[in-house]
Amino acid sequence: MSAIDDLSGELAKLPGIGHKTATRLTYFLLKQSPEAVNRLAAAIKAVSERVRPCSTCGNLSESDPCSICRDPTRDPETLCVVEEASDIPAIERTGEYRGLYHVLGGHLSPLDGVGPEDLRIAALCMRLANGGEVREIILATNPSMEGEVTATFVRRELENSAVRVTRIALGLPVGGDLEYADGLTIAQALAARREMPT
Amino acid sequence: MSAIDDLSGELAKLPGIGHKTATRLTYFLLKQSPEAVNRLAAAIKAVSERVRPCSTCGNLSESDPCSICRDPTRDPETLCVVEEASDIPAIERTGEYRGLYHVLGGHLSPLDGVGPEDLRIAALCMRLANGGEVREIILATNPSMEGEVTATFVRRELENSAVRVTRIALGLPVGGDLEYADGLTIAQALAARREMPT
Repeated sequence: MSAIDDLSGELAKLPGIGHKTATRLTYFLLKQSPEAVNRLAAAIKAVSERVRPCSTCGNLSESDPCSICRDPTRDPETLCVVEEASDIPAIERTGEYRGLYHVLGGHLSPLDGVGPEDLRIAALCMRLANGGEVREIILATNPSMEGEVTATFVRRELENSAVRVTRIALGLPVGGDLEYADGLTIAQALAARREMPT
Repeated sequence: MSAIDDLSGELAKLPGIGHKTATRLTYFLLKQSPEAVNRLAAAIKAVSERVRPCSTCGNLSESDPCSICRDPTRDPETLCVVEEASDIPAIERTGEYRGLYHVLGGHLSPLDGVGPEDLRIAALCMRLANGGEVREIILATNPSMEGEVTATFVRRELENSAVRVTRIALGLPVGGDLEYADGLTIAQALAARREMPT
């Protein structure tokens, strides 16, 4: 197999990249300087060699504990529980959250054979038992069926714990349009309505 | 800068890949086995190190002359002139063309400072003068303004040559819908209408 077909084949394995896009990317790379192409190849190798899950929170990072767990300015009393490490940068970008994280590593999905023991739920309970500093756990799993089931499961696991357990709000997305919102979202937005201060 | 940000930044330089997709791809790669990730990195390095333009036709290939130029079963009497090497796989996939190719390396674009001397037009004339085998040149530049201008220019350069010069047909795309075709395409399809055998 030629180097061109080989690279196209490898690129086509990436999510959202089909055969045509893979070919287009390959020819794009062929037009770039060897330095630029080698920078990309080196960045790919580096990420796979240097990035590991943080043993405390499960965030993907080059150090262990990760930079968030090591940051003394972060509030150790709040834990935000997310499905994937890739959810963390999305929350960090808001600049609104100053607590720590806990990555579950997915969501409960009996059909795919993912049970509680496959997620970092026991690690979360251990963290609560050992630390003792945590006062609030924010369940920020996805607003999907699986995310809800997972949040409910984790909530029950923490039943006998003294910490406050909250769930991120579901409702209409900011900048969205009521006319185009789906029924479930509107129903959720209605059910979670709040008093409006004057 | 972290390895994750570094790779996201490199991926975001690729055409059609924005910041969000780059981040998504980075986290996808972090979930793959080191072997799979290294295969991708190696394929990227290999393509930049091993692939070179064919000195005869300009096709990108690991050998020089390229596998198409070396193939004794191909018809050396027909040359298909394309803008980019990436156009060749698209034509090859049809399985309908058995001649050779000539890559111009782009199209005439005075606004971008691309003149005839920047394209492999002189190399095409040399090929005709030296070889003597070529009997037909198919101008398969893109059906765009620039592609048409380039085809017209090449046609004039070959004015005094004995070879037959043809242009690929423009018209309605197969499987398309007249209702949604643009006016220029319909006008072209009307102008290029042919007698229909009974």
